[in-house]
Order: sequence, then structure tokens, then C-alpha cells
Amino acid sequence: MRKYTQVFQGTAFSSKSPKEVQILKEYLFCVNANGMIEKVVSPEDADYQPLLDAFQGEENFLRLAEGQYFLPGFVELHVHAPQWAQAGTALDIPLYDWLNTYTFPLESKFSDLDFAKNVYQDVVSTLLANGTTTALYFATVHKEASLLLAEICAQKGQRGLVGKVVMDDPEQNPDYYRDADTQTALADTEEFILAVNKLAKRVKQGVYPVVTPRFIPSCSDDALKGLGELAAKYDTYVQSHCSESDWEHDYVKKRFDKNDAFALHHFGLLRDKSVMAHCNFLNENDADLFVETGTAVCHCPISNAYFANSVIPIAHLHSKGVEIGLGTDISGGFSPSLFDNVRQAVIVSRMLEDGVNTALPAEERGVANSRITINEAFYLATAGGGESLSLPIGRLAENYAWDVQIIDTSVSSAKLPIYHAKEDLHDVFQKIMYLVRSENIREVWVQGEKVHSRY
Amino acid sequence: MRKYTQVFQGTAFSSKSPKEVQILKEYLFCVNANGMIEKVVSPEDADYQPLLDAFQGEENFLRLAEGQYFLPGFVELHVHAPQWAQAGTALDIPLYDWLNTYTFPLESKFSDLDFAKNVYQDVVSTLLANGTTTALYFATVHKEASLLLAEICAQKGQRGLVGKVVMDDPEQNPDYYRDADTQTALADTEEFILAVNKLAKRVKQGVYPVVTPRFIPSCSDDALKGLGELAAKYDTYVQSHCSESDWEHDYVKKRFDKNDAFALHHFGLLRDKSVMAHCNFLNENDADLFVETGTAVCHCPISNAYFANSVIPIAHLHSKGVEIGLGTDISGGFSPSLFDNVRQAVIVSRMLEDGVNTALPAEERGVANSRITINEAFYLATAGGGESLSLPIGRLAENYAWDVQIIDTSVSSAKLPIYHAKEDLHDVFQKIMYLVRSENIREVWVQGEKVHSRY
Ligand SMILES: [Zn+2]
Ligand SMILES: [Zn+2]
Repeated sequence: MRKYTQVFQGTAFSSKSPKEVQILKEYLFCVNANGMIEKVVSPEDADYQPLLDAFQGEENFLRLAEGQYFLPGFVELHVHAPQWAQAGTALDIPLYDWLNTYTFPLESKFSDLDFAKNVYQDVVSTLLANGTTTALYFATVHKEASLLLAEICAQKGQRGLVGKVVMDDPEQNPDYYRDADTQTALADTEEFILAVNKLAKRVKQGVYPVVTPRFIPSCSDDALKGLGELAAKYDTYVQSHCSESDWEHDYVKKRFDKNDAFALHHFGLLRDKSVMAHCNFLNENDADLFVETGTAVCHCPISNAYFANSVIPIAHLHSKGVEIGLGTDISGGFSPSLFDNVRQAVIVSRMLEDGVNTALPAEERGVANSRITINEAFYLATAGGGESLSLPIGRLAENYAWDVQIIDTSVSSAKLPIYHAKEDLHDVFQKIMYLVRSENIREVWVQGEKVHSRY
Repeated sequence: MRKYTQVFQGTAFSSKSPKEVQILKEYLFCVNANGMIEKVVSPEDADYQPLLDAFQGEENFLRLAEGQYFLPGFVELHVHAPQWAQAGTALDIPLYDWLNTYTFPLESKFSDLDFAKNVYQDVVSTLLANGTTTALYFATVHKEASLLLAEICAQKGQRGLVGKVVMDDPEQNPDYYRDADTQTALADTEEFILAVNKLAKRVKQGVYPVVTPRFIPSCSDDALKGLGELAAKYDTYVQSHCSESDWEHDYVKKRFDKNDAFALHHFGLLRDKSVMAHCNFLNENDADLFVETGTAVCHCPISNAYFANSVIPIAHLHSKGVEIGLGTDISGGFSPSLFDNVRQAVIVSRMLEDGVNTALPAEERGVANSRITINEAFYLATAGGGESLSLPIGRLAENYAWDVQIIDTSVSSAKLPIYHAKEDLHDVFQKIMYLVRSENIREVWVQGEKVHSRY
């Protein structure tokens, strides 16, 4: 019994299935030296009282206060770390201007490691403060600054998956911001993979290199091919943007006479460890290919309103068995919070179901059976993200990492509207999902270590 | 010069027109004993230095710190105060169940004044903490509890416009929660108007009674007629729900063979001081009638995703000259923050423009020219709300009330991503609109009085 490194007592919410949330009322969570949940004990279990007797009052025992709850840490599947510096700006201008007047000039500044350090420290801290315990990052084309981001994740205790971005096509990218040439892009990527793998050896919570073609339009065929080979050689994660918008979807179709999914697959970029952002315009065959290859979709509901010309049919893709997680897509999306994106995931699914145009009759306005519930959106941000990354994260269950947010519903400056001590816990869960702000996130733990606290 | 009661110095953002935000860099705002802005002084004005010399260092002089900005307080045009107790819950169930299992049972509890006091104190404080300096409230059918809400607004310093809800039709409302009969509904409303008008005499920032038929389906013809007469007799504000959803729109059409707008107008309920929530299904004639009568639309973008089956064409209605403001519609909408609703107003306008269904070609998917900018959404939450209520609020300009939020972009626990002291102020404005949380709202002032502070 003494073998546990830490024991936590309190009420937790964790996904049982995509549609069902399990309420673990006053459970004990026993965590080992590796930061893994070794045992989950219900008050009905025979072990419960002996465990309590052994740990209560000890330094390594934490009991939640009244009004506090455990949630799994969030798994963020798509965030451009450098773009935190421009989050919230320029969302009223066309994509071309957004890229060329704001985004590329900003990303090009990350050759400056001091500037990079400033922004990267802030974005990692900000995501942790918002309950994000694992994040899959796009960095920039710069090998050194991208490595710095991985180091900052390591140091701040976040589980970081980081990609040095590849964008080598001189026709498609500005001269001041792209890989020097295809060979350099691939060589830098390989060095980056090796450096992050070396760093990973001393990082408890894990850091991982990610092969990261920005998206098909910014890469040459040779780069795409070389990146697929590197992903296979080092068995790495892969990330990119896929079938995001009308423009992008049409561009790829013209260039390859096939959809993004099959084009990426041709280059070996759809793997079990692949996560593709957006994917609004996947057709049935594309979705089947995702299922077949184990490729996951990252849904970015806020960003999509600005740049994706549509709503991705999440309910339909889920029913086909596609793995799906959630992303902020900073700064295509403005919010660093997956809570905000959970809410938006529900909202846009309702808007897809009901439609938008009042000039159409109700039965022609939307797409039937598109809505998802708040439970499903929570699943996307937690267990769905974990499955997308094939990591034991996103659930409060045995053999999962102790990645946790401690939510306080009674913080005086941000009190949730709970008026009965015995309020139904399903209602409490919904209030948490819809109303919590970073202020209510009192502690964040990753792999058994406390990495953020507001006390 | 000594005649000003208070002088404030700092950079402010205020709407110049629906599409333009004026940046008042390092201005002085001189406020008189009535809490009105008597003089706005730019650093180029000859008065500037003499005023500074006279007030700097005095107790009634406030200079913003680095990273702080003034915004006009928000004007909230539609919030069900009692429903704060269930905010965030039950949004996955059908409207009928939402009303009968959650909303009506909850609202019926406001016959208990202790319970009402608890919830109403919280909701007023919560809205103030979110920067809302003026709010147009639905209370419940209970005359006493509705008056209590007005008293709490008065006491906490918020400009409150409060309606005792009328829902008298025994066919449409549950026996446990409705007006006893039509006569009682009208008599209670009249008593309520008189009581609030009496209260108003001693309230600096103003409190106002509002004639409030819940919506046409819950009221008898006699009640609607009587309420129109009361609104005329006492020259009060009027609020209701109008053309919100397919169901409601069709119900009114069947009952009166006309749309909500003309039905409400028939009963004298469309007046310059009328604000109608939602209005998604207004047709061109309805919108013209709104312009003609001076009736305002309250756009509730979060709530609409759940209950309105569509997106209201704000850009189109604005171009026709309809007055429009913004509302949270708690708890049809979950968020107490108009910042959240400003963001959502932009998002849904983009979704209306681009459409949602990926199975349709781009040119058939959405409704062209529907997008609004962040500047326009800010206008809705401030100046547009003020115009809707015909009150001198929502702008930082001479002869407007000193209703202000002091935003701090550099709060350590919620720092905005601003990396250059000289960052373009338009970008700072956008970051504020997209990223601020209640944590960044350090002070809130209404009519020259500080009513909320986080220091
Ligand atoms: Zn992206
Ligand atoms: Zn309402």
C-alpha cells in the first residue's frame, strides 16, 4: 500500500465512451513514481478505508476541498506556438493578407532566439493555465527555435509534441520565410528529430518530434516524399493541415488530381501517429482512408469559422470510427482555451444541424443528425485526443498518466452558479464545461507533477 | 476647471460609427457630479496641460497604468436573471423539456424571496464583473421578487431595466408557474411599474420598469392589449422575444395570420423604447416596421445556436437602419460575458456568409456579404445597445455617462500577448476584444461611481 507515490481523493469526471461521462464520486486515485495512475478506488471497494487510513494526513495525500473537482488535462492537437504573439488580431482580413501581412512576417522573427523564448514561454504557460497538459505544436521553419520550444515544454512540465515546419516551395512561400531548399528542409528535420529524441530521454512527461509539412501547397513533391520517409525511419508523429478550405481543397485536387488525404497517403504521411488539422472537406473515401491508416482528425471549431468556409461533420465522422481530437489552432482561432473550443464544438454542430439561412425552409436549411452533446465535445478534448496520439492520456483511469486539472467552482471572483450542496453532478459537470475560466483552474498536474497553481 | 468631480487620464476605445473604432490616445475624461462626461480633452487641446496641472496628484484624478485601457461599459439587452442558477445546463435537450423540466420549475422558485435574493445578487455582481454596466432583465412572474431585482441593481450600482414577466395563458403555461389570470397579470405589472418608478427617484444610475410579455405564445390577447396600454400610459420600455425560431414564428403566424412584428405592433408593443430578443426570422416588412417604430433588435448569438434554428442577418438589418444591440440570453446562452457574445457575433456572421454544409458547392453554401467585423460587434455591445435603449451610454464621449471598464492587458495570471510597448493600438484593441476575460477587467464604473474592483 505504501508503494504509491501519491494518493488523491475527490470527485472526478472522465469519459466512459464518446457519449457518456463517468462520475467518480469521492474516489481515490493512487499514482506511482512514474506519474501513472496505478489504482482507482471507489468508496465501495474494500481497499478504500485502509488506503485512506494509511495516507490521510500525509504529505503525499491530497484531498479536494468542497466545490473542487478533478478533470483530465486537455489534449490540444493543433496550435501554432509562434502565432500566440498575434492571437486575436487580423481576423477580419482575407487569408492571403493574413498570411503575408501578419503571419509570415511574425513567424520569420523566430530566427531570433530571444524573441522566440519570450513568446514560447508565454504560450506554454498560457496553455497549462488553461488546463492543457499535452499539446501538439507547429513551431516555425527554424530548427533551433523549434528545439527551444521542445525544451521549454520539457522544463515547464508540459507534454509537448513539436514540429519544425517545412515549407520549401519558392513559388508558394516568401523568400524571407521558407526553407532554403528541399535538402536543407529535410536535413534540418532529421537533425531536429534526433535532437528532440535526445532531449526526451530526460523528460518524465515526454517530448516528441513531429514531422510537419505546413500543408501540401507550401511543399514540393520531394519534400513531401522525404518527410514521409523520415516519419517511417524514426517512427515519428506527423501533422499537417488537410482539406481545410475550398481554396486549399481545390488547389490539391488540381495539383494531384486527388484529395489531400490520398495525396498525403501517397507520400507516406498518413500513419497511426498522424494528426491532420481541420479536414472539413474529407469525402467518404478520404474518411475511410483515415480509419484504415489510424490517422486522426483535429477539429478546430473556432478557427474554422474564419478560415474553413464550413463546419466539419464531426458526428458523421465519429460514427464512421475516425479518431478525433480538438485544437485551438492559435491564431486562426483566437482562444488558448480548449474549454472555449469544447463549447464551440457543440455550438457549430448545432448550427450544422439546423443550418444558418433563414430564407430557406427548415427542412432544407441544415444537415440532420449533426449535433454533438457537451459530453462528446468533452471526449474530443480529453480521451479522443489521447487516442489520436496513441498515448495513455485523457482519462482518469488505471494505467493512464496523472494529467489533471483541479477545478474550483467556488472561487469567489469566478463562482459558478451552484446553489445546492447536493446539486446533481451531471449538472455540475455541464456548468463546469460551459462556465469555467482559467481562474477556476486552481492546479494542473502532468505525469504526477504539479506544473501550475493559482494559490 | 475645478468644477469637474473627477478626471481620468488614459487611452480609450469607443465607437465612432458601426464600422469604425476611435482610439483616444492618452485623453482626459472630465466627469461631473451627475456622473456624466462633461469634457473630453485630447493631448493636442490647449486645455490639456492646465487640466493635468490642476488635477494630477489629487484624490479625484485617476491615471491608467501601463497596459491599461478604458472601454465603454457593455450594454446587455437580454438576460433572464433567474436562469443564472441553471446557466450551462440542459442545453442538449429539446426546448419543450428545457422549459418544463428545468426552466419553469426553476423560475417558479422565485416566489421564495431568500432564494431570489441569493441568485439575483450573484447575477448582478457577475454581470458587473464581466463589464456589463447596463442590463435589460427578464425577472419572473413574481412582482415582489422582480422588484427585489431592481433594488439589487440600484444597490450594486448597475443600471438595471427590469421586467416582471407576464405569461397568463392557462393553455400554454403550467399551473404552478403563470399569472393567476389576465387581470392579475396587468394589475401586478402596473404595481410593479409604479414601485420601480418610485425606487428610481433615489438611484443615480437609473433603474427602469419594463413591460414584459414573455412571448406571444404565452400570453392571451387581452394581456397583450393591456400591456401595450400600460407601456403607453407610463411611457415604459417594452421587451419580449420575437420571431426567434421556426416553431415560434409559425405559431404566431397561425394564431394571428401575421408575423410577430405586426402582431406585437397591433397590441402597441413596438415603440421607440422596445427591445425584441432574437428576431432571426424578421422579413423585409417586419424589419421596416422596426425602423419605423424605433424598435431595437437584441442579437443573442450564443443562445441562437441552441434555440433559434438559424443565424440572424445582422449586416443586412444594420444596412436597413434597424437599431441592434447584444444579449447573453442567459440561460439559453450559457455565458454571462458580452465579450463572449461579441466574439460569437463575428463568428456566426462568418458562418452565415460562408455557410456550413460541405456537401454544397461554395457558391450555394452561404449568404454573401453577411460578415461583420470585430469593430461592428463591439459597436453592438456598446453604442448600439445605448441607441437601442435611447440612453446616453455606450460611448466615451461628451454628454455620455461615465460607464467604463478598465482593462488591464498585463495581469500576470491572464497576460495578453503584447510584446512591443509600441504595438499598434488597433491590434491591441482586437486582442482585448478577443482575449480579455473577467480577470482582466480591473475596475468597472457606472455613472461616475466605482462599482466593481479586483484590487
Ligand atoms: Zn493551423
Ligand atoms: Zn430569452
